[in-house]
Amino acid sequence: MAKDMTLLWGSGSPPCWRVQIALEEKNLQGYNQKLLSFEKGEHKSKEVLEINPRGQLPAFKHGKIILNESYAACLYLENQFKSQGTQLIPEGAAEVGLMYQRIFEAQPLAQKIGEVLYYNWKVPEGERHDSAVQRNKEALKEEMKIWEGYLQGCGDFLVGKSFSLADVIIFPVFAYFIRNGGSEERYPNVAAYYKKLRDRPSIKKTWPPTWIDGPGMGTLKDI
Amino acid sequence: MAKDMTLLWGSGSPPCWRVQIALEEKNLQGYNQKLLSFEKGEHKSKEVLEINPRGQLPAFKHGKIILNESYAACLYLENQFKSQGTQLIPEGAAEVGLMYQRIFEAQPLAQKIGEVLYYNWKVPEGERHDSAVQRNKEALKEEMKIWEGYLQGCGDFLVGKSFSLADVIIFPVFAYFIRNGGSEERYPNVAAYYKKLRDRPSIKKTWPPTWIDGPGMGTLKDI
Repeated sequence: MAKDMTLLWGSGSPPCWRVQIALEEKNLQGYNQKLLSFEKGEHKSKEVLEINPRGQLPAFKHGKIILNESYAACLYLENQFKSQGTQLIPEGAAEVGLMYQRIFEAQPLAQKIGEVLYYNWKVPEGERHDSAVQRNKEALKEEMKIWEGYLQGCGDFLVGKSFSLADVIIFPVFAYFIRNGGSEERYPNVAAYYKKLRDRPSIKKTWPPTWIDGPGMGTLKDI
Repeated sequence: MAKDMTLLWGSGSPPCWRVQIALEEKNLQGYNQKLLSFEKGEHKSKEVLEINPRGQLPAFKHGKIILNESYAACLYLENQFKSQGTQLIPEGAAEVGLMYQRIFEAQPLAQKIGEVLYYNWKVPEGERHDSAVQRNKEALKEEMKIWEGYLQGCGDFLVGKSFSLADVIIFPVFAYFIRNGGSEERYPNVAAYYKKLRDRPSIKKTWPPTWIDGPGMGTLKDI
C-alpha cells in the first residue's frame, strides 16, 4: 500500500496517465489520489500549486519528495522500487540503450501532437497563420512515419521481449493520438501496438474516465 | 579507453556538451569523436544521418547501440558504468527524487531559451510577431526566476552534496544562457553556481572551443 503517496491528476493527460501506469506496475496501489478538471481550471488550484508551483498535472509526491515531471516520477519509482512489481528497466545493454533512446524520442512526438491539437489555445488570435498550422501537421506526419517504422516487426512491446519504461511512457502518447482522431489505417503498426497493450491490466485499470463515453474530437483525422 | 564509442558533436550545443561531460565523469576517455559545424550544415551530412536519422547532434553510439538523445546517452552511460568514475545518481531517496525532478524541469528551461534565441530561425518571416517575441522573453524571465529560487542557498551542486546527473545535464544550459548574454547580475545564484562548476575538470576539458575566442552575441541581454 502506498499511503505515503499522493497523485493529483487530470483525465486523458498522457503525463498523468503514465504515472498511474507506473504505480500499478510497481504494485503501488492505495495511494491518495484526486481527479481534477482541466476544463474547470482546477490544475491552477491552491492544492495543486502547493505541490506543483507550475500549476500543472500531474502533481505527485512520495512523502516529502516531489515529482511533478512525469518522466521524473517514472524513473524515480523504478529506482526506488526496483525489486517490486514489474522490472521496468531491462537487463541487456542493447535493450537499456534502446529504451532510453525511444523514451526521449517520444518527447518530440508528444510535442508535435500538442502543437497541432492546441494551436488555437497556444497562439493568440492575431498571430495565427494557416501556413503554421500546415507546417505543424506535416511535422507530425513525418514524426508518425518514423514511429511507424520503429514499430515494424515489433513484438508486443516497444523494446525487447518485456514491458518496460518505454511502454509506460509512450503507450499513452499513441493512445492520445488515436483518441484524438489519429488514423489507425495510415499507421497500422502503431495501431497494432496500441491494440496489443490496451487491455494490459495496469493500462485498462487506469484508462482515462473521460474517454469511456464515446469518441474524441477527431482533430488529428487528417494526420 | 572507450574505443567502441563514437561521438559526432557541435561546439556550444548543450545536448552535445552534456554527453561529453558524462563521458569524462565516467572515465570514458579515448572515444572516437568529430567536431562538426552547424553553420556549414554538417549535422545534415551522411555520416551523421547514418547514426542519427533526424540529422541532429549529438550523434552517439556505443558499439551498435545508438543514443542520439542527450538525456538518453547520459542515463545509459550511468546505468552501464555505475561503478566507474563519478557515481552520477545519488544514494538517498530524497536526492534521487530531486535529481530527476530538476533534470526534467530543465527541459522547459532549455526550450524557453531556444524560443528566444532562435525565433527568427524557427518562424518564417511572414509569421513573425513582436508580441510573440515579447511573450517568449517574459516566459524565459519567469523560468529563470524559478531556477534562481532553486539555487538560493544551494551548495556546490544542484542536488545534495555531490556532483550528479543534474549537474551534467543542467550546467551546460546555464552556461549557454550566460554565453548568450544572460545577466549574471539579475540571476546571482545562477551565476554563482556557474562559477563554482566551470573549472571542474570534466567541464573545463570539454568547454566549447568556439566559446574560447571572445564573447557571444548578447541576444539574451535583456532577459
